[in-house]
Amino acid sequence: MPRNRRPASVSGGWDGCARGTFAPEAEGLKLVWPHSARPWKGIAVISRDLDTPKAGGGETPTLFSFRLLASDGHARRGEIATAHGPVATPAFMAVGTQATVKGLTSEAVRATGSDIVLANTYHLMLRPGAERIAALGGLHRFMHWPQAILTDSGGFQVMSLTELRKVEDKGVTFRSHLDGATVELSPERAIEIQNLLGSDIAMQLDECLELPAPRPELERAMHLSLAWAERSKRAFEAASPQRALFGIVQGGDDLQLRMASARSLVATGFHGYAIGGLAVGEPQEVMLRTVAEVAPVLPADRPRYLMGVGTPEDLVESVARGIDMFDCVLPTRNGRHGLAFTRFGPVNLKNARHAGDPRPLDEASACPAARDYSRAYLHHLVKANEMLGAILLTTVNLSYYQELMAGMRAAIAAGTFADFYASAREGWARGDVLPA
Amino acid sequence: MPRNRRPASVSGGWDGCARGTFAPEAEGLKLVWPHSARPWKGIAVISRDLDTPKAGGGETPTLFSFRLLASDGHARRGEIATAHGPVATPAFMAVGTQATVKGLTSEAVRATGSDIVLANTYHLMLRPGAERIAALGGLHRFMHWPQAILTDSGGFQVMSLTELRKVEDKGVTFRSHLDGATVELSPERAIEIQNLLGSDIAMQLDECLELPAPRPELERAMHLSLAWAERSKRAFEAASPQRALFGIVQGGDDLQLRMASARSLVATGFHGYAIGGLAVGEPQEVMLRTVAEVAPVLPADRPRYLMGVGTPEDLVESVARGIDMFDCVLPTRNGRHGLAFTRFGPVNLKNARHAGDPRPLDEASACPAARDYSRAYLHHLVKANEMLGAILLTTVNLSYYQELMAGMRAAIAAGTFADFYASAREGWARGDVLPA
Repeated sequence: MPRNRRPASVSGGWDGCARGTFAPEAEGLKLVWPHSARPWKGIAVISRDLDTPKAGGGETPTLFSFRLLASDGHARRGEIATAHGPVATPAFMAVGTQATVKGLTSEAVRATGSDIVLANTYHLMLRPGAERIAALGGLHRFMHWPQAILTDSGGFQVMSLTELRKVEDKGVTFRSHLDGATVELSPERAIEIQNLLGSDIAMQLDECLELPAPRPELERAMHLSLAWAERSKRAFEAASPQRALFGIVQGGDDLQLRMASARSLVATGFHGYAIGGLAVGEPQEVMLRTVAEVAPVLPADRPRYLMGVGTPEDLVESVARGIDMFDCVLPTRNGRHGLAFTRFGPVNLKNARHAGDPRPLDEASACPAARDYSRAYLHHLVKANEMLGAILLTTVNLSYYQELMAGMRAAIAAGTFADFYASAREGWARGDVLPA
Repeated sequence: MPRNRRPASVSGGWDGCARGTFAPEAEGLKLVWPHSARPWKGIAVISRDLDTPKAGGGETPTLFSFRLLASDGHARRGEIATAHGPVATPAFMAVGTQATVKGLTSEAVRATGSDIVLANTYHLMLRPGAERIAALGGLHRFMHWPQAILTDSGGFQVMSLTELRKVEDKGVTFRSHLDGATVELSPERAIEIQNLLGSDIAMQLDECLELPAPRPELERAMHLSLAWAERSKRAFEAASPQRALFGIVQGGDDLQLRMASARSLVATGFHGYAIGGLAVGEPQEVMLRTVAEVAPVLPADRPRYLMGVGTPEDLVESVARGIDMFDCVLPTRNGRHGLAFTRFGPVNLKNARHAGDPRPLDEASACPAARDYSRAYLHHLVKANEMLGAILLTTVNLSYYQELMAGMRAAIAAGTFADFYASAREGWARGDVLPA
């Protein structure tokens, strides 16, 4: 059996990587909606994108699907289909918080190799408002991004950005960080907002805790998130099933809670599954162990999304454990602060050693920003606080992240994922040294 | 005689436009270097750009020339040749203060239609330093801009940005706005710096006063600037005559001083002539009257550059009076602050009336940034202080400025400059109104 076709239950040999038990071939590689475990029946399809809205029972159409194309160990090569084009997985989503990936035109984001971006429900509901974006034709048109969009539910930002918040069963009440106005966000409203935005993938509202957190707190938040998941699904079904809704596994660093959360979500049935509440303060090995334990519980025929992760190493380690999708502010935020991600590890352009260096960041890069500008110029732009420094380094970083994802995808398809990872690690370990 | 071939001494019929007396055909349209009036002889050519540096007397090669292609009234259509490509005139130069047009990649600047940009000697001498840029291969390579560059002399910024400055005959001493270090700038050092940067057009060091200013002050500064012009030329001749050096007419709002300054500079002989010290507080009619009086004194076969100007109306009015080149921060700085320049006048995207407006700024524009994004989105970006707002509006504004220049060039060639101006004015007067 060729390496890329072996059942995923055969370990890929990654140290510390838990063994999964799914066998994609046996389950069928093409997702057919509705999910057989919990058919989504009787949904009135209220379509904004389709020409002929339908209503009624039986199988409901969706423009979302996931195909698993190859696997290598637990690492999976797949493709998500959306109404706004395909998304090759493993996929990295650049973060477009306020309907813009900071500093880049949508064309520039696309040129980095992005099939999909993430936008933040919390920010957009407050400004300019979901109803306004809907009236303007939806988020894709608003931000001039014709490819796929995933929106988060707003939960994470409510927890991390607002004060005076009150979490109750019905939802969360908080003060806007913009004007102090009191705002309520329920699972139903989070879905309504995401439907108004018209994202291709919506996320359930969940409660995400910083780690470490006491077990009773983790348990309470996990159960609340599960209840919100059910309500999110009901609200979503009532509106726009031709898009996708993902459930979010919570439970902090407690594996027992994580398992319970994952199994319960799978029983409810979602188009995809996210693992949330990681990369929030815990050590990397805790995160990876959690991923390794949770991923095999999730259905092989649905995409798996590790939220808010991470470093290049995090991405490869998590793909090795069966993750298909990521989002993270690291490449964009660090780019704005003078840090470049390269094949040879991070490069801090603020450092005076670059001031006279005529070499580009990586002359072998496919990214013009990494090839056409000297380190000396990038250093100058960063020191002078010029926008172009942020623009070029954001471009460099997103391009490197997308190059890494493309490299993983090719390696999984070729059955050479372990070799690819070894080679990537070698580059990171070499570091950004001057040639002898 | 076709309209575009008539002598420039025939008035174009512009209200308030002084009548010039030059006749380009008679003087010959092609500039042959050195200028016949004051041959630049015996110059040792120290070449950084050419493969085979030459030395010796006689006529010295230059990669700079100016051809007058057509005129319509006093308005001139020409072409500057530089070692870094041609510059169609009338030309607008985007300001790239710190070796970057704020917010745009060099490709994006080029895409707005720019043949040439301006960089600031003052800023670059302080950071990263002229010697550093020279060691890195010069400013073109440093900022990844293969087209033409004009550098100012640093004088204007020294006067406007620094404290504790002391202006003496030998030069100016000031404190750096970056670290308070004491720095000296002489005419010779200003030329040396610009040679190190490798700009295609260098400017003499001058002293520029804010208006209104007492006549004795204006006279002193004008004479100092003339003395510095002579020294600048001597320093320039000794180093790099294959590039161009422009003299700067000073004299404030005193026409007598202006005439004396212009005549003296012409007697000295420069590759081109700038009118400095305008748009520094005086009414527009004072500026335009000065331009109208000074331009005819300048040789027809050399480009004329009105420094730091201006609004779209300023540009057209000044071209009508014989100006060939402009630079101004208006389109870029205003773009960063939410103001768009359009065919229908300025549009303040901060204004709440745009919040729900799905229309682009100008759907007929050749500029994608003016076409592909709704006013609502631009308003959102500006309100949210997103970099992309500055990027898109800077692009829109530079594109509009370049479109205006291209329109003037075509109209001059066709002998329809007055019609073009009438049509442009009509658009500005219409204003940014909603369609009925």
